[in-house]
Amino acid sequence: MIGFGAVGSGVVNLFNNMTREIFERVGLSVELVKIAVRNKGKKRSQIFDKNKITEDAFSIVTDPEIDIVVEVMGGEEPAMALILKAISQGKHVVTANKHLLAMRGEEVYSAVESGEVELGFEAAVAGAIPIVRAIRSAFAGDRIDMIQGIVNGTGNYILSRMTSEGKPFNEILKDAQSLGYAESDPAFDIEGIDSAHKVAIMAALAFGTSVNFGSVFIEGITSITPDDISMAREFGLKIKLLATAKRCEGGIEARVHPAMIPQSHFLASVNGAYNAIEIICDNAAKNVLIGPGAGSGPTASAIAGDVIDIACKIARGGAGKTPPMLIPLELRNETKVKAISDMVFEYYLRFTVSDRPGILAKLAGALGEKGISIASMIQRGRQENEPVSVVLTTHSAAEADLDMALEQLKDTDICLAPVTKIRIQKDA
Amino acid sequence: MIGFGAVGSGVVNLFNNMTREIFERVGLSVELVKIAVRNKGKKRSQIFDKNKITEDAFSIVTDPEIDIVVEVMGGEEPAMALILKAISQGKHVVTANKHLLAMRGEEVYSAVESGEVELGFEAAVAGAIPIVRAIRSAFAGDRIDMIQGIVNGTGNYILSRMTSEGKPFNEILKDAQSLGYAESDPAFDIEGIDSAHKVAIMAALAFGTSVNFGSVFIEGITSITPDDISMAREFGLKIKLLATAKRCEGGIEARVHPAMIPQSHFLASVNGAYNAIEIICDNAAKNVLIGPGAGSGPTASAIAGDVIDIACKIARGGAGKTPPMLIPLELRNETKVKAISDMVFEYYLRFTVSDRPGILAKLAGALGEKGISIASMIQRGRQENEPVSVVLTTHSAAEADLDMALEQLKDTDICLAPVTKIRIQKDA
Repeated sequence: MIGFGAVGSGVVNLFNNMTREIFERVGLSVELVKIAVRNKGKKRSQIFDKNKITEDAFSIVTDPEIDIVVEVMGGEEPAMALILKAISQGKHVVTANKHLLAMRGEEVYSAVESGEVELGFEAAVAGAIPIVRAIRSAFAGDRIDMIQGIVNGTGNYILSRMTSEGKPFNEILKDAQSLGYAESDPAFDIEGIDSAHKVAIMAALAFGTSVNFGSVFIEGITSITPDDISMAREFGLKIKLLATAKRCEGGIEARVHPAMIPQSHFLASVNGAYNAIEIICDNAAKNVLIGPGAGSGPTASAIAGDVIDIACKIARGGAGKTPPMLIPLELRNETKVKAISDMVFEYYLRFTVSDRPGILAKLAGALGEKGISIASMIQRGRQENEPVSVVLTTHSAAEADLDMALEQLKDTDICLAPVTKIRIQKDA
Repeated sequence: MIGFGAVGSGVVNLFNNMTREIFERVGLSVELVKIAVRNKGKKRSQIFDKNKITEDAFSIVTDPEIDIVVEVMGGEEPAMALILKAISQGKHVVTANKHLLAMRGEEVYSAVESGEVELGFEAAVAGAIPIVRAIRSAFAGDRIDMIQGIVNGTGNYILSRMTSEGKPFNEILKDAQSLGYAESDPAFDIEGIDSAHKVAIMAALAFGTSVNFGSVFIEGITSITPDDISMAREFGLKIKLLATAKRCEGGIEARVHPAMIPQSHFLASVNGAYNAIEIICDNAAKNVLIGPGAGSGPTASAIAGDVIDIACKIARGGAGKTPPMLIPLELRNETKVKAISDMVFEYYLRFTVSDRPGILAKLAGALGEKGISIASMIQRGRQENEPVSVVLTTHSAAEADLDMALEQLKDTDICLAPVTKIRIQKDA
């Protein structure tokens, strides 16, 4: 194993506690032979032989005694170099590294295919939720049309608490950090990047294509205010950070952004650090998987499941014959990811304007000029000489048109602050 | 394929529509070679070559051209004889037959193991919900403590409509039959037997044991009334037909019965023909899978997923090496299934009594004698000279004690009709 952080510790605990069961299930003993760490001297509470800890990760991926390399260090490098080296040495790989697979998945999958080794990456998407197996195997006989869900526990935790407590983003974020629900550098979680990693991995797997990560649309939750949340409630909606991968005319959609969804939608009731993913198939219709999206235990469980699957294949013959993706490399092409500007949504728009006569007419006029019609308009919190919030919702409109209208408004003296735009998905 | 009913038709449609994708995924063409039916003359709307339809199912399981036998005829015999013959001929088997696997699973699993063939049975439990893969593979590195859920779509459909419409069981059942949600002989669904089949299969798989189907506790929904449902609502509870498999001191629990669960529990909001299964693991914590529990499309999708998994193994080598269960035959023992009489629940009890002074005291007295204490008592619909309903809820009590108290009351003139007893699971 490479890495001995929270997830690595979970793996050590699991293997310590499950020795007998794992032996029974595999028919061989599966031993954690060596762990590579950055700092050998660090004190650790897990029961693990210190002589088996090394600071030289390359000594693991080249050790002829080792059959399976578990990579839980994260990040692009040196994880990538280590994984490629392991594969070149005929070792099977289990990884929880969503970042790496999202950015450079094709390189990994190709190396796995030509190296005829196994790759387990259940832990890379949504903790122990068996989404990789669902796409790669359970629905392999079906056509997946859409995968949509909440795949970042930290973001969902923050939004859930903002919704239930009515407190601002920064306050909840700080609290989440002190409680361990958010990391000290929360950028990947709150800016939607972590969700986008998972979207890219799931889209590539489900649609048998390679996905250019740069083309995934990403918008985080940092500009959402308690006002937006309470306005959503008035409309019967709830704000969630949705991750969507979807087949569409001429390509696929791959996007991450906050969305207002009906309160009655099952995703609206998925709160806290939970993840939930719906898979819509041609034959199987809608199936939903829900579970803790991260954490040491669930991630370790996903890793152990992959290790045991591979160990069973080693024990009985047949290891190295499972392609990592649904279809082989030579049939995989890069699919066009539809630009967000070419999509159509209903929108929630919150403008901060000065409270002067005629302002509403100007807002409505600018939108109307681009063919965008207004569904509702609400002005609240009016105080003399203070900027006021005006909330508009629109009927379905092309994002490009809306952005042009908003761009034009920016150049006037009407808007005193950037406009908040949240997509409404009533039929999410 | 053996059987060409609703599920078989779904499989034919799927293979007709997915020819290209299946070829891409497997690397070989997967052809539906022959279908055995009871009546060759029956008109069918699916596109399938009539010359490939036979009434001789044994000609399929002995055909040397055939690699995989899909059994969708259902029932114990001749399905069992056909499956065993197929295995003895070295054929891999995919089956949707929950009845057969619940009653005689060990025989099938043993034959599969010693015959070194593959067995796919995802379709036997809860439509396309990937529960078999979850237990057999995704959580193979973890310890499953409990599997609980709603695994019969017909029963859940009827209870959901009784709950939303307040109409009696028989009326909703008839309507469900005319709409195709319930079969003309609905006994397996409404009496809990179908759910119990699934419990037996999941328990055997999750706990690495053989399960004697006769020891699974089964109680259906036929005696539930709109009154019970509305009383449950007053308590903040909802009635669901729950299927539970759980590790416990000295063995396992395996039971199916209606239960009152909190309205806030996610299972309470799973309505209509949907199934939902929660899996509680030592490391992965709680994961939940939700989907349509039956139907031609979802079941066909599950079958196709299994066929493609096996076909991939045939194409690349390695078929026949996946044991059907988590642990091999020689390590599987029959585990003791705890008797329901040895369990402890809170209870909802509805008595039909004559409206005479002192009756309540007698009910309370009979329960108190067995050490059962009453949590609440409600009497409603009082009309002169008419029997009245008295509803009691109890604190936690041993089922054996409660049953003794109820037995004694039966021998008196107090109860004018059988008592309705529904278990309350507040921490379901």
